[in-house]
Amino acid sequence: NKFISFNKAKIHIEGRGLQFADSVYEVVPVINSKIIDFDFHIKRLKFSLKELLINYTVDKNSLKKIFNKLISINKINNGIIYLQVTRGVQTREHVYNNKLKPNIIIYARHKKLNLPIKKFKGEKAVTYEDLRWKRRDIKTVNLLPNIMAANFASKHKAYEAILIQKNIVTEGTSSNIWIVKNKKIFTHPSNTDILKGVTRETLRILIQENKLQLVEKSFTKKQLFNADEVFLTSSSSCVTPITKIDSKVINSGKIGNITLNLAKLYSKSFMNE
Amino acid sequence: NKFISFNKAKIHIEGRGLQFADSVYEVVPVINSKIIDFDFHIKRLKFSLKELLINYTVDKNSLKKIFNKLISINKINNGIIYLQVTRGVQTREHVYNNKLKPNIIIYARHKKLNLPIKKFKGEKAVTYEDLRWKRRDIKTVNLLPNIMAANFASKHKAYEAILIQKNIVTEGTSSNIWIVKNKKIFTHPSNTDILKGVTRETLRILIQENKLQLVEKSFTKKQLFNADEVFLTSSSSCVTPITKIDSKVINSGKIGNITLNLAKLYSKSFMNE
Repeated sequence: NKFISFNKAKIHIEGRGLQFADSVYEVVPVINSKIIDFDFHIKRLKFSLKELLINYTVDKNSLKKIFNKLISINKINNGIIYLQVTRGVQTREHVYNNKLKPNIIIYARHKKLNLPIKKFKGEKAVTYEDLRWKRRDIKTVNLLPNIMAANFASKHKAYEAILIQKNIVTEGTSSNIWIVKNKKIFTHPSNTDILKGVTRETLRILIQENKLQLVEKSFTKKQLFNADEVFLTSSSSCVTPITKIDSKVINSGKIGNITLNLAKLYSKSFMNE
Repeated sequence: NKFISFNKAKIHIEGRGLQFADSVYEVVPVINSKIIDFDFHIKRLKFSLKELLINYTVDKNSLKKIFNKLISINKINNGIIYLQVTRGVQTREHVYNNKLKPNIIIYARHKKLNLPIKKFKGEKAVTYEDLRWKRRDIKTVNLLPNIMAANFASKHKAYEAILIQKNIVTEGTSSNIWIVKNKKIFTHPSNTDILKGVTRETLRILIQENKLQLVEKSFTKKQLFNADEVFLTSSSSCVTPITKIDSKVINSGKIGNITLNLAKLYSKSFMNE
C-alpha cells in the first residue's frame, strides 16, 4: 500500500498469480500525461474480478489518484499504466481460500504509441492457430498461447499474429482484428471467444456516431485475405493498419481510406477530451 | 542460487511467470524422505522447457542434491518438492528476449499422501467442462481453468473435478482419470489433450508387468458413469478410488478390486526401491 522503487517491487513465490495464473490485469494508455479510457478499463477489471470471484473491491477514485501520482512521479508523457490483481498468497493448492487478501501491483512505463500524426505506417501480420482457453472474455494472465503466437510473429518479422480458430478469425494476441469489405466494417462479436477490447469499444461508438457501417459478425480466414482493408486495435497500438498478412499483400500495401479515417477519429476523440 | 528462508523468497513483479504465465513446473512427491519418480519428473520438465524454448539446461545431479538438501533441512518425511522455472524478468512485452536468464524456484512442504495402508477411502468427484487451452501436454502454470474447476468441486464437497470435452473425459484438474469395465482398464491416450502424468506412467508399466489389460483410448461421460470402477492418479494423490461422480454412485460406493490391487502395486513399487 505504498510507492516503492521499481527494482524492489517483489511478490512472494507462493503467490497464486505466479503458481496458477490466478490473476487479472489491465494496461491503461497514457497520452500527453492523460489517462485514456479509464472508465472502460475499470469496468472490464470489475467484470474480470467478478467472473473469477476475486475479493477485491475496486475503488475508482483511489485508483485514479494512484495512476496520476505514478504519471507525475515517473514523468510519463506517453506510456502505459500496468495494473495487476492476484488472488493472493496461499499454501499451494488448487482450491483457494475465500478470505485471501489480493495483491495489487500498479506501475507506469514510458512507451511510444502508434498515432496517425507522423510516421503512421501499415504493419505486417501472420496467421497462427488459436490455442487459447475458452474464456477469453476475462482479462487474465493465462497468456502463454498468446506468447507463443507473438513469438511466432516476431520470428517472421511481423507486428502481430492473427489467431484462427476452425477457419474463423478470433482476434490478435493482444489486439482486436477488423476488416473492411465494400465499405462495411466487420469485427468478431464480443462473446467468450474474444476479449472485448477497450479501444474496440471506443471505436464502435465512433463508428456509430459517424454513421459508418459496422457488422459485428465473425469472418473467415479467406474473408480476411480478401478484405479491402485490415486493421487492428488495442490500448497500446490504437488503430494500426495491416497491409500484409502471411505472404498476401492487402490493399496493394497501402493504408486504406476507412482505416485512416478511423485512426484519425480515434486519436481526435481523446485529443479533445 | 542459495537457500533462503521461505518468507523471504520473492520474485520481481515484472517476471514473465507472473505477467504471462510463461513458466513450467513440477511437483515431486517425497515418501519416507525419499524422492519418488525423480527421473520421470525431470524428463517431463525437459519436455516442457523444450516445447516453450525456455533457456534452462537441467542439471539432474545438481537438482537431486538441492532436493535432498531441502528434504533434510525441512525434515520432510512425507511431502512434496515444488520446482518452477520461469522464463525470466523482462520489460513487459509479449515477445520474449531469447537471452533471458530463467528464474528457478525450489521448495519443500510437508503433505499427507493417500496410500492404501490405513484409512484408504473412496472419494467423490464432479464433472465440469474442460475449458483449457490446446497444449495440456506441457506442464505450465496456465492453470486458471483448472482452478475454476477445482473450486467448483470443492463447493460441491468433491475431491476432484473430472473434465469433459465434447462428451469425452480428458482428465482431472490435477490428475489422470481411469475406468475399469469388464476387467479392462481404460485411460485417455497421452496426446496434447492431457498431461502425461508421472503416476500414470508408473502405473502403466505396473499394469503391463502384472499382465492386466490396459486400453489407452478415450471414453465418454456415459462410459464413465457406467464404469465398474473409477480411480484417479497423480503425484500427490497416488492411486485414489472414486466412488461417486455427481449424483451417481460407482460400484455401490465401494473401492473396486482392481483399483485396490493397483493402489497396492503402486505403493509397493517405491516402498521396495
